[in-house]
Parts: sequence; C-alpha cells; structure tokens
Amino acid sequence: MKAKFIVVEGLEGAGKTTAIQTVIDFLKESGVTSMTQTREPGGTPIAEQLRAIFKQEHDNEALQDMSELFLIYAARVQLVENVIKPSLLNGTWVVGDRHDLSAQAYQGGGRGIDKNTLAQLKQIALKDFAPDLTLYLDIDPKLGLERARGRGELDRIEKMDLNFFERTRECYMDFARSDERIRTIQAGQPLDKVQADIRRELADWFSSL
Amino acid sequence: MKAKFIVVEGLEGAGKTTAIQTVIDFLKESGVTSMTQTREPGGTPIAEQLRAIFKQEHDNEALQDMSELFLIYAARVQLVENVIKPSLLNGTWVVGDRHDLSAQAYQGGGRGIDKNTLAQLKQIALKDFAPDLTLYLDIDPKLGLERARGRGELDRIEKMDLNFFERTRECYMDFARSDERIRTIQAGQPLDKVQADIRRELADWFSSL
Repeated sequence: MKAKFIVVEGLEGAGKTTAIQTVIDFLKESGVTSMTQTREPGGTPIAEQLRAIFKQEHDNEALQDMSELFLIYAARVQLVENVIKPSLLNGTWVVGDRHDLSAQAYQGGGRGIDKNTLAQLKQIALKDFAPDLTLYLDIDPKLGLERARGRGELDRIEKMDLNFFERTRECYMDFARSDERIRTIQAGQPLDKVQADIRRELADWFSSL
Repeated sequence: MKAKFIVVEGLEGAGKTTAIQTVIDFLKESGVTSMTQTREPGGTPIAEQLRAIFKQEHDNEALQDMSELFLIYAARVQLVENVIKPSLLNGTWVVGDRHDLSAQAYQGGGRGIDKNTLAQLKQIALKDFAPDLTLYLDIDPKLGLERARGRGELDRIEKMDLNFFERTRECYMDFARSDERIRTIQAGQPLDKVQADIRRELADWFSSL
C-alpha cells in the first residue's frame, strides 16, 4: 500500500495531541512500520523560524492578515516539498498536526480573508497536493479555550476572542460537510469515547484503501 | 503636492546606495522637507526578521522558490501597510531601496516563476499600490557582481551564477520598456555621469507633477 498523509485538525484544546497518538497507535497495530509526524506551521528548520514569527506577540507592529497568510504558506511549501512529499515517496506515512485546512478555517473563517484569495494562494502553493484523510476534532470553542488556557501561557492566536474561534469553527464545519476526505470527530465527549470514534473512522477508511 | 513613493531598483553592484543619496539630495533641493527611506525585503521589525531568513544561507534545507516569494510578499505587505502608506498619507515622501519590481525581475526572470503566478500574488498582496516613479539602474551583471564582490561576504542571492542575473536583468529591461513610470539609468557609466542622468530624469518627472 502506498504511504498516506493523515492530518489531525481542530481548534485549540480540541485534543489534537492525544488524537495524533491514537492515530499512530492504530497505524502501528495495522502493520504500518514507517511513519513520521509533522506540525504546522513548522516542521523544518526554516518553517520553525517562520512559526516563531507567527506565534509570537509583536509589541510594536501589527502582523497584517495577508502577511500572516504568506508566512503560513512559505512554511507550508517548505514542509510539503522538503519533508512530506519525500517521506511519502519513500514509503513513510505522515501524520500531521494541522495542514492547509487550518488556513482555510483560521484565516478564511477567523480573519475573514475572502475564499477566492485563499483558493488562489492554495493553488499557487500546493497545486493538487492534499491529505489522504483529515480527522477534524470538533469542539465548542468555549470548552476548547478553557482547556487550552489550562495549559499555561497563551500565544498570539490563542489570545483571540471567542467570536474569532466561532467563525473558525463554522468554517471547519463547512469544509467537513462538503469534503468526504474530512471526517468529523465529536471532541467534547469523554476521552475514551473520542478515541473509540477516531479508531472507528480510521478502521472504516483503512478498509476502503 | 501629495507625497510620492520613489524606488531605486537594479542588480547587485548597480550603485543603488549612491543613487538613493542623489534622489534624497535632489528632493531636498526641490523643497521636499519630509521624507523617509525604506529597504526591501525589510524595513519593519517583522520584515527585517523575514529579510534575515531570505538572505542567510540554509545549510541543511533548500529554501523553495515559492517559499522565497511568499516570504518576500509577507515582508512587503508589512512595509507597505505599516510604513509606506501611513507615511504617504502623512505627507512624508518615501525613497525605497527596491520594491515589487525586484520580485518580478529576480523571482520571475531569475528563478523562472511564471508571470501569471507573480501577477496573481502581486494583486493579492498589493492591489493597485505601486511606486510613483522607479529609477532602474541598468548594469552588465559581470560588472555589477565584480563591484558587489568587492564589498566582502556575499549573501544567498549574491552567490547565484551569472545566468541568474542575466535573466533578472532581461526581465528588468522588459518591464522598463513597457512601463512609463520606470526610467532606466545607464549605471555602468562614470559616477558623475550616472548622477547627472538621475538628476535629469528626476527633474523631468518632477516638472510633470
């Protein structure tokens, strides 16, 4: 079987880290021996430099929405061309903490950048490259932010207000409804139920390969 | 008179720094009292962080052409929105060391990124914003590189081969021929002749305002 690219998506506090571990466990149990993890924005030396600029507070300068988007795409192209594509070609599965759906949801939904602009940029940056499967962890932003805040210091994005995350969630849900490669997990449930749902979706997808 | 944005463009070693000083002297003599200088990529705290990534050698990772272009546009949007536009609105003239024509020439001509992609990105990043006047300092890349190398340590771009700069120059010249807001200066001439040409072009342009 050709190596695949599986992405875990969702708002802050949706439980991506735990979900990724569940995906990795499942893949190992299913006989996948070679796999690697990525996170976005980031995941290469250059992309991690860009991630730092993306995450940090800039006291004396507003990071413009379009600059933020260009930064994200610069980092994404580095990761896709230098890590993800070569891994897949090598037979190594890739499990990603976020990918392009985050840009559609946060910059499109949250920031309000128009859909045409986002589609053009995506096409320029990624052409037809896309994950084979995306698990979208859906959570009420109130609950997610409460969890995220429990983890300590908030970054520039985590400090956005509730409305921002509600718009982002709406956008995530719109994409999940219209793209069969995105599967929605109810992430507000108890952990064992979330993990069981992830495993069921993975098993269903895996059996269709 | 409304404040204007004047840009000096050209290959490495074309003499941009001296030309910028000539422009500033001319403007002062012409009664312009408020002006500021910019350089690209860079010119704001965030854009300078991006400039460093753009300029530095990356030993273990190739900077992809499209990532380079996204970086440049992230930096450019920061500079235009946070510095250039507010300055012009304030009545402050802006004299720029490079602007978008560099992307068209280096990334379009030098790197070979297709013109449609460049035009789309430019439109997304800048809409209709453009310099009022561009002085393009045309120089044979052999001579320009010789001069640039005489200045010491070369950055990632300056280390490109002669063909890269020849393609970049061709592209600069194509734009200069088709856009009347770009004026070409023969930068291989003796310095006093170059300065006289710059002053003559500025005087001609200034009298038309």
